[in-house]
Amino acid sequence: MIGEHPVLAAERRALERWCGGDPSGFLELCDAEVGYFEPFRAARIDGLAALTAHYEGLRGQVRVRSWEIVEPRVVEHGAVAILSYRFHSVAESGAAMRWQASEVYRLDGEGPRLLHTHWSLLGAEVA
Amino acid sequence: MIGEHPVLAAERRALERWCGGDPSGFLELCDAEVGYFEPFRAARIDGLAALTAHYEGLRGQVRVRSWEIVEPRVVEHGAVAILSYRFHSVAESGAAMRWQASEVYRLDGEGPRLLHTHWSLLGAEVA
Repeated sequence: MIGEHPVLAAERRALERWCGGDPSGFLELCDAEVGYFEPFRAARIDGLAALTAHYEGLRGQVRVRSWEIVEPRVVEHGAVAILSYRFHSVAESGAAMRWQASEVYRLDGEGPRLLHTHWSLLGAEVA
Repeated sequence: MIGEHPVLAAERRALERWCGGDPSGFLELCDAEVGYFEPFRAARIDGLAALTAHYEGLRGQVRVRSWEIVEPRVVEHGAVAILSYRFHSVAESGAAMRWQASEVYRLDGEGPRLLHTHWSLLGAEVA
């Protein structure tokens, strides 16, 4: 997509792999200091080693039939870009989910690297 | 609290006001470009004018009996600090809630200013 911000392009490539069961796209984007929130774990995961362990436990288990990035926005400040968007997904099971995602990237390395990830579900989505 | 990071100290002061029904503490911390996710609104709120309108609609309505910041962490990168923590609250009604919060601050102004806010609830918390 011409004109897409580099962090959005990187995120989209990682999501394509994630939705096919491969977490390595995101792991390759992470800074060593990455922090990570998701709604199914109370505690934040801190650091790439811990996040790798978590993601490896999910490898091959995520099967998303279709997904969409909704209203992405990038705010740059210095060597940091904050990407935020909604994410609509339909699993192979047919289950639809509506997510909110905030991804904080550093921009001063060899490529964008995630310093922080926050994935959450809308209030009405979770039982 | 001696040794507390300035963004955590600023956040704590804003939370004290928020929990008494006053959103102005957070509004005074916001950058004009602030982006905002919460679990009860699907769409992100972009910009201080829109967030002010939202928060003014909540003025006087939030009454939190007790609250706690759990496992705060600050990651600084250049002129940005990423504060993340869990937030446990008990409302005047007795309802307990468990939140996850990510707050991205710029550091190169007169004081810390929020570029992005993401509040969410744990999966098991929301009906």
